[in-house]
Amino acid sequence: MCQACDSFLDRLFAKGVLHETGVDGLYGRGQAFEAVIEGMDRLITRIAANDRAEVIRFPPGMNRALFEKSGYMKNFPQLAGTVHSFAGSEKDHLALLDNIHNGGDWTGGQGATDIVLTPAACYPLYPIVARRGPLAAEGGLFDIQSYCFRHEPSKDPARMQMFRMREFVRIGLPEQAASFRESWLERARGFAETLELPHHIDVANDPFFGRAGRMMASSQREQALKFELLVPIESTENPTACQSFNYHQDHFGALWGIKTAAGETAHTACVGFGMERLALALFKHHGIDTNGWPTSVRAALSL
Amino acid sequence: MCQACDSFLDRLFAKGVLHETGVDGLYGRGQAFEAVIEGMDRLITRIAANDRAEVIRFPPGMNRALFEKSGYMKNFPQLAGTVHSFAGSEKDHLALLDNIHNGGDWTGGQGATDIVLTPAACYPLYPIVARRGPLAAEGGLFDIQSYCFRHEPSKDPARMQMFRMREFVRIGLPEQAASFRESWLERARGFAETLELPHHIDVANDPFFGRAGRMMASSQREQALKFELLVPIESTENPTACQSFNYHQDHFGALWGIKTAAGETAHTACVGFGMERLALALFKHHGIDTNGWPTSVRAALSL
Repeated sequence: MCQACDSFLDRLFAKGVLHETGVDGLYGRGQAFEAVIEGMDRLITRIAANDRAEVIRFPPGMNRALFEKSGYMKNFPQLAGTVHSFAGSEKDHLALLDNIHNGGDWTGGQGATDIVLTPAACYPLYPIVARRGPLAAEGGLFDIQSYCFRHEPSKDPARMQMFRMREFVRIGLPEQAASFRESWLERARGFAETLELPHHIDVANDPFFGRAGRMMASSQREQALKFELLVPIESTENPTACQSFNYHQDHFGALWGIKTAAGETAHTACVGFGMERLALALFKHHGIDTNGWPTSVRAALSL
Repeated sequence: MCQACDSFLDRLFAKGVLHETGVDGLYGRGQAFEAVIEGMDRLITRIAANDRAEVIRFPPGMNRALFEKSGYMKNFPQLAGTVHSFAGSEKDHLALLDNIHNGGDWTGGQGATDIVLTPAACYPLYPIVARRGPLAAEGGLFDIQSYCFRHEPSKDPARMQMFRMREFVRIGLPEQAASFRESWLERARGFAETLELPHHIDVANDPFFGRAGRMMASSQREQALKFELLVPIESTENPTACQSFNYHQDHFGALWGIKTAAGETAHTACVGFGMERLALALFKHHGIDTNGWPTSVRAALSL
């Protein structure tokens, strides 16, 4: 076997760090990979411990009606995943089985359920916060996590279709949101240094759809609403966004009717950790075998 | 507020143990709930530590082609969830947005992706094991986990649409599969006693679809292929299955071509832990506030 020709993904498969499923961007996770994810989760929890954020964990799907209201289909229709089910009779079922047996398309008869796969961990949070009524004077701070889905099949292991996103979300006055984001930009540098990952932080934009999307992307960059912590994984020229730092202004506050204690529309900001991407960055830079990682990195992850 | 009239689910919402999303069977998880899930995960890991199972964790979706081959749509079509995405032009996108804006059904234009939500944690495992070639003489043992989906919206908090399933799967000779299941039936009693949950174990069947399904269900019961550990949660007459113990004979071995060292078709067995159901059983029997739980239960869960 030509070791030099193997891609990073091939090597992860060969060592059982990830397991192939036959679908690009959809992988089983081996013991070493999960140990790294768990270690990072603990490290992030320690970094944020003094903030005393409210912990909520979400299942991988969200309410479709709330998803529709969120505007996601306007901005990122190509990435979303709706969940569909069979609700037919026994006769319909026989036709479906015939279809599968003959290699036909049996999925046309599936009807949309009330559930859509969660595209980012914070989407299900805002309606929950809105329902509680006006914020306290100190605003709100949430520590959330979800498996997320984005339909972008790729051979780049860092572009998975299903991956975990840990997020902290700040909701309150504009200056509360802004100082939250500033503090995490600072902490992120320390986090990447602790993990001994080469990195830099840069302004960024979301992958808005179509021609109108290009304008939204430039406006987002001009206003510096999104930053990313970038680490080279598959390429040095196009490093991978492993964390993002977003200031939404009053977008979500207005959309969901979240009010500050004074009755103003709340501003929101979030920091998101791409857990699989961070783990892959570690395997890329420190090696496929975690036993050979630097002692200080292993200690930080309690490996 | 009439405390006595509140359902168990209402009380879980009121205390932030679970968070409402507007869809029955789809809930956010609060800090106390997740601490219990994590504690149970550690306890299960300790119980199984000497078995040295291979750890694999799966994302919430699996390869649709493998799912089709698995026969799930024959037996449980009503429960499955296929994932669909938009792949249209900018013009199609404008029509889609109009549809959402007018409250129309925009989901008809979504096309099936290569991904189906995982119905049980072991479904993605068998093809991975088959690909490795014949088993070693001692067979295989796997410690797996996945978020699973079943389309059965319900107000019973123990019947979630998205929930986590931890499983151990034994693959090998018929007697290896049988003795594995026996050992877990014994361990399960100890597990439930450690958690001080009222319980009993009984023969059971899967919810096979339609008229033909009724025959499969009786045959499964007659052959005692499935047992469940039952705990009263929403009802004493109809207690909830919190664990299941399944002997598949050579069904999956034959389907996926898994061979023993001697070249025979492998037999398989699994034990599955319904993590959300077990957590709910604890909240039901020991109270909504985990601080008031019996000291020994709190210690077992490292709470």
